[in-house]
Amino acid sequence: MAHDIRIVTEAELRSALTLDLSIVDVVEQAFAKLAEGGVVMPPILSMELAEANGEVDVKTAYIPGFDGFAIKVSPGFFDNPKLGLPSLNGLMILFSAKTGLVEAVFLDNGYLTDLRTAAAGAVAARHLAPERVEVAGVIGTGVQARLQMQAAHLVRPFERVLVHGRNPDHAKACAADLRESLGVAAEVTSGEDLVARSQLVVTTTPAKEPVLMADWLHPGLHITAMGSDQSGKNEIEPAALVAADLYVCDRVSQCEVSGELEAARAAGQMAGTPPELGSIIAGGPGRMSQDQVTICDLTGTGAQDTAIASHVIKVLGDAGTVIQT
Amino acid sequence: MAHDIRIVTEAELRSALTLDLSIVDVVEQAFAKLAEGGVVMPPILSMELAEANGEVDVKTAYIPGFDGFAIKVSPGFFDNPKLGLPSLNGLMILFSAKTGLVEAVFLDNGYLTDLRTAAAGAVAARHLAPERVEVAGVIGTGVQARLQMQAAHLVRPFERVLVHGRNPDHAKACAADLRESLGVAAEVTSGEDLVARSQLVVTTTPAKEPVLMADWLHPGLHITAMGSDQSGKNEIEPAALVAADLYVCDRVSQCEVSGELEAARAAGQMAGTPPELGSIIAGGPGRMSQDQVTICDLTGTGAQDTAIASHVIKVLGDAGTVIQT
Repeated sequence: MAHDIRIVTEAELRSALTLDLSIVDVVEQAFAKLAEGGVVMPPILSMELAEANGEVDVKTAYIPGFDGFAIKVSPGFFDNPKLGLPSLNGLMILFSAKTGLVEAVFLDNGYLTDLRTAAAGAVAARHLAPERVEVAGVIGTGVQARLQMQAAHLVRPFERVLVHGRNPDHAKACAADLRESLGVAAEVTSGEDLVARSQLVVTTTPAKEPVLMADWLHPGLHITAMGSDQSGKNEIEPAALVAADLYVCDRVSQCEVSGELEAARAAGQMAGTPPELGSIIAGGPGRMSQDQVTICDLTGTGAQDTAIASHVIKVLGDAGTVIQT
Repeated sequence: MAHDIRIVTEAELRSALTLDLSIVDVVEQAFAKLAEGGVVMPPILSMELAEANGEVDVKTAYIPGFDGFAIKVSPGFFDNPKLGLPSLNGLMILFSAKTGLVEAVFLDNGYLTDLRTAAAGAVAARHLAPERVEVAGVIGTGVQARLQMQAAHLVRPFERVLVHGRNPDHAKACAADLRESLGVAAEVTSGEDLVARSQLVVTTTPAKEPVLMADWLHPGLHITAMGSDQSGKNEIEPAALVAADLYVCDRVSQCEVSGELEAARAAGQMAGTPPELGSIIAGGPGRMSQDQVTICDLTGTGAQDTAIASHVIKVLGDAGTVIQT
């Protein structure tokens, strides 16, 4: 049963792969499959290592029609910066969906997660944002703030980006980076002003108290909230979910335990079952007019991991080290 | 954050590591830690790929005092033999328990699982079998039948092994292999005769109906049942669990959903909470006399995976391929 397994490092992946529409398309395809019903996506395996202030999550999903499935391991060790190491790292393993054999190990330290997470934001923007976005805003100033705006720009080529963050220096640096990478006007402003002037807003924070308030909503606005990925996190005021014309989950079962829906339910609101992004891609009712307010809640799905891992292996060329087993 | 990650193939692991007492000892240590209470062992992540007649399980555990933790992925694709491939394969990943960084990827195709599973059998025999075992019996004729007897022989150096299996040719081959590897007398016989003449019996089958009956029990017998690892499997007649002086689980929470305890509970028996192997290693009440009948139910724990992965990295020398990241 000798076969080759490809081992690919983060540096090799960064050389071979940057955020582009092909990644957005394959992630969109994964969401569409999620709506069709044949996807198998078990609950996330999560383990806390309290002594090391660490945690590790494992995600996976099988998507019919995809040749492989990914298992992704995401450790987060929050004392690492004291040691000069990043908090987040990890890897993704691609298996054949026909034989279960290991095909590749992507030692990506979260790079592929960054890409597939940003791509989901682009999918949400493509299907839910107003057709014309002149100004986009991002709340948060980290890696995903930059990537979410890059991804959004692929599908809604806005002319100006607004940035808001708690730390003004970080916000300035983020705005400068986006000005350069996207060639757009970029400025730092308050959260309220940012929302008021934007047609598309992405929240990318680890906030536990809302950073975007219900009374900031205005006609012709789409919000993607992608920061909440664990119980207790909350970026959007629950009343905003109720006030919006449409609230959409990446996966309802995840959003109600780790997304914006959790806080809304805890506040006694949003009792029904919201639609999922996949159903809107598949043609279900979405934004009905350019004036509506839409919100998309992204918690991150194993289906996205399977999608990007399956994509990477096709575009890698001969990058990486081949291990013969 | 450049660091080295070691990639080790099954062939390299087989060269570096064979079943010996050092493996039994480290697995015993993991069980003892399980009893102490600081271990974090999440429920198994399990995904079915019905279209390919496949499944994949992910296990992990954090053990205080161990430098690393393992995440093990075990795919089972049961149409593989039609393609000339083994049904079972997979890999184990060792992470630092301090930083979450990947330290090694063991492309073992289940070899390390085979070893840690056999080692658990030896731990059970060491702590539960009568002190003197002249005859050991194994029901089942596969890889684990051989390894379980090799492991048991390390702690109870019996002089004769009895083998029973549904397929007489497989049983003969297994007996011949054990005769050669252990230098003991070996014969094939019925299940009932095997149990009657043995002081130590290991069941290693995927049976869904009992292969070892309650009225076969006799004074001075220890049974380890290690075949059941999924709901619906059952090797030992439920009445035998009741009749034994002592029934021990590797992990109660697993045995009641995937071990012998499941069938017993379904039959309305064994209502209480049995002791775990770790508590007996730690000095809790075990076998009280050489005449007692004891049964140990092994479903396989993530703690064993962490134990063997942590051990392997220490004995590997410079085997494997080092990837610089």
